[in-house]
Amino acid sequence: MDFSLLDQLCGIHAPSGNEVGMKTFLLEYINQHQAEWKVVPEIHEGDLFQDAIVLKFGNPKTAIFAHMDSIGFTVRYQDQLVPIGGPKAESGYRLVGQDSLGFIECELLENDGDLHYKFPRGIDRGTELVFKKDFRETDEFVQSCYLDNRLGVFNALKVAETLENGVIVFSCWEEHGGGSVPYLAKYIYEEWGVRQALISDITWITEGVVHGEGVAISMRDRNVPRRSFIDKIIAIARESGVDFQLEVEGAGSSDGRELQVSPYPFDWCFVGAPEDNVHSPDEIVHKHDIACMIDLYRVLMQKL
Amino acid sequence: MDFSLLDQLCGIHAPSGNEVGMKTFLLEYINQHQAEWKVVPEIHEGDLFQDAIVLKFGNPKTAIFAHMDSIGFTVRYQDQLVPIGGPKAESGYRLVGQDSLGFIECELLENDGDLHYKFPRGIDRGTELVFKKDFRETDEFVQSCYLDNRLGVFNALKVAETLENGVIVFSCWEEHGGGSVPYLAKYIYEEWGVRQALISDITWITEGVVHGEGVAISMRDRNVPRRSFIDKIIAIARESGVDFQLEVEGAGSSDGRELQVSPYPFDWCFVGAPEDNVHSPDEIVHKHDIACMIDLYRVLMQKL
Amino acid sequence: MDFSLLDQLCGIHAPSGNEVGMKTFLLEYINQHQAEWKVVPEIHEGDLFQDAIVLKFGNPKTAIFAHMDSIGFTVRYQDQLVPIGGPKAESGYRLVGQDSLGFIECELLENDGDLHYKFPRGIDRGTELVFKKDFRETDEFVQSCYLDNRLGVFNALKVAETLENGVIVFSCWEEHGGGSVPYLAKYIYEEWGVRQALISDITWITEGVVHGEGVAISMRDRNVPRRSFIDKIIAIARESGVDFQLEVEGAGSSDGRELQVSPYPFDWCFVGAPEDNVHSPDEIVHKHDIACMIDLYRVLMQKL
Repeated sequence: MDFSLLDQLCGIHAPSGNEVGMKTFLLEYINQHQAEWKVVPEIHEGDLFQDAIVLKFGNPKTAIFAHMDSIGFTVRYQDQLVPIGGPKAESGYRLVGQDSLGFIECELLENDGDLHYKFPRGIDRGTELVFKKDFRETDEFVQSCYLDNRLGVFNALKVAETLENGVIVFSCWEEHGGGSVPYLAKYIYEEWGVRQALISDITWITEGVVHGEGVAISMRDRNVPRRSFIDKIIAIARESGVDFQLEVEGAGSSDGRELQVSPYPFDWCFVGAPEDNVHSPDEIVHKHDIACMIDLYRVLMQKL
Repeated sequence: MDFSLLDQLCGIHAPSGNEVGMKTFLLEYINQHQAEWKVVPEIHEGDLFQDAIVLKFGNPKTAIFAHMDSIGFTVRYQDQLVPIGGPKAESGYRLVGQDSLGFIECELLENDGDLHYKFPRGIDRGTELVFKKDFRETDEFVQSCYLDNRLGVFNALKVAETLENGVIVFSCWEEHGGGSVPYLAKYIYEEWGVRQALISDITWITEGVVHGEGVAISMRDRNVPRRSFIDKIIAIARESGVDFQLEVEGAGSSDGRELQVSPYPFDWCFVGAPEDNVHSPDEIVHKHDIACMIDLYRVLMQKL
Repeated sequence: MDFSLLDQLCGIHAPSGNEVGMKTFLLEYINQHQAEWKVVPEIHEGDLFQDAIVLKFGNPKTAIFAHMDSIGFTVRYQDQLVPIGGPKAESGYRLVGQDSLGFIECELLENDGDLHYKFPRGIDRGTELVFKKDFRETDEFVQSCYLDNRLGVFNALKVAETLENGVIVFSCWEEHGGGSVPYLAKYIYEEWGVRQALISDITWITEGVVHGEGVAISMRDRNVPRRSFIDKIIAIARESGVDFQLEVEGAGSSDGRELQVSPYPFDWCFVGAPEDNVHSPDEIVHKHDIACMIDLYRVLMQKL
């Protein structure tokens, strides 16, 4: 598989709240490639969607949610940083951003939980800094910052190529408590009656979910989705022959949480490849698990 | 009072997210008994309600919310368990469930906060285990797992017998963070303009709320309902002559929370009998408090 | 500036959940003064708004949200108190309220985190107590309990005098987890398409935001608003010549949070004067910062 698109995606500045760079990139990508896709989707975006994008293919029953935003840091006062979402923070990490004086590449300093930057000049208040991308690829693995969730976006774009019926939602703010899924869910439910959702996101390597054994189907995390929907997905996965692993966690969350608590009767399931070194510049995912993720999404979008 | 129905309800497998067993039981019960009720309700259920049920009697102004789900445990990896909701967990508790290999009765092991099961074979990932029912009845008390909230469901079914105008909602997921009340609230508000709610649920014995002195009217818990609605309920309760106790807490939550934060102007109040040994297999409630709960609901549903 | 209206507002009993006193006062004030205002607003209130009020001026694009409620305490059992919201609690603070036996003025006792009152008689369960007002004014400062958020309400009323197009929302429950903004947001979005909001509330003096240097524009707190909207507000503020300070925090929340997670695509920004002695009877704000707050709101409501 060619991962140059993923490489590009991982380098786009789009911390939660400022996803406009990803939106612009994705709209350009979609406009350039949709003619090659099996079905040309309707594109729904603009003021009423803030920086989110909705693609509608054919007669949809199920939606894929892939969040565009990443974790990062906001410059506070003096050399202080405040986290955006829950980034891993170790001294020496390289951070990049831009303020009124120009491009910034600086170093993260972590001191007993307090976060600072090291840079020859002061940085404007409110400037967002993100991990500097260092994309690495071996025969077996891809490694970079922000595989969570540029890989979820990549998966959605790959599935888009052959998708006949379905919705793809590119959402915002997922890493920092949400804020776009409520109105996106309202839209796809009220316009098209869509109330099944797959969360195209990246999960964790644990004692029960390992590299190379296939995409993870999460039976629960902090949130407990409806069991009958999970069972249906597992049954389709078994029949498909695609490698998958069952995940059961008591913590962690996703865009699924906002569907769960929305005033619409959504069924949802998190289905995604697992990564190690979560929320660090060195997130790593096995290529076989990525291939399985794409394969399983193709099957699920047909059979659900 | 005959508690054999309550006994039955306490034994139904319905942890949060998998309430389909309770839904099936309740639909059968309602179909069998509604001919004897003063008013035959409209039954609203199906895909758009997931596993929840809404009963509409006459011209409703007020809704009773009774959650069907229970706390429990999900099997993780190896012999590990993850809680569903906030169960009390002590070594030796008997747990029951079912997986691909058949029926399971096993023992809970608690070790410094970590939860495990003890069973001769491995149990399928994602299997839900619940407390094994041991229903006990004396002259004064009923005792069992899951009085919270099978007693709230029992109360709703008793009130249904004579209810002329009102809605009864059987909700899901309450023990684990919610997820059905938002769309159920939307439905009853948009369809029938209902914006008053009584939360038919079980509360705690404390230094201020004791066994045998009547149903508790909760003036607040973690959430603060609108004072003018609480005052109205207390005034009706005083006039009714039914024994009641006023509860004031800073913690604890219920389906009321989801009504509070819903985009509909709901007034709500938690009204329920108090129990001791909360969220354990040995929940215990005084029969007088149950009788008062049913009596007060009958009055409130007429006068509110 | 004449602060006698602010003085009055600070003395009105309106802890979260019981805002009816503020509602009554505001409706009277509005009815008395609206004839002098540039535009006479439509007043939306009543059952469907609980104790909240919405004023509509002309053709609105932007709404001001000012919460009416305050922190306080609820009487529990014996002499115990439970907080409403997050009040500062020090022994010796004077508290006032009313129960079935009459007016109460008592003393707060704080003992290792436990809260009690000292009063010659028992107080009814569920009685709300609030700080006794001691309004102080110097050449530079105003000081009182409940500047948060009676000053936000005061700001909205001052802006109302010359407002041509816009919405003013007086909301409830902000200090205790919310509950009115969801339906208020729904109303102003569905009725008038309003999806821009300014949060008229009071923030904190910190190492980066100080007394006397102008109104604070919050770039983020616990919640991260959409960056493009914040940038637009900062650009208008710079052009206006009004003194302002940029705030960046990782904690703290406001009515903005509920707009963020609502099923409507709201852009929002917290714009408010900073105070010291937060959530105590001695909240203090610099008069210059109040003047800047009012001036900036006037400009923003025209230019946004």
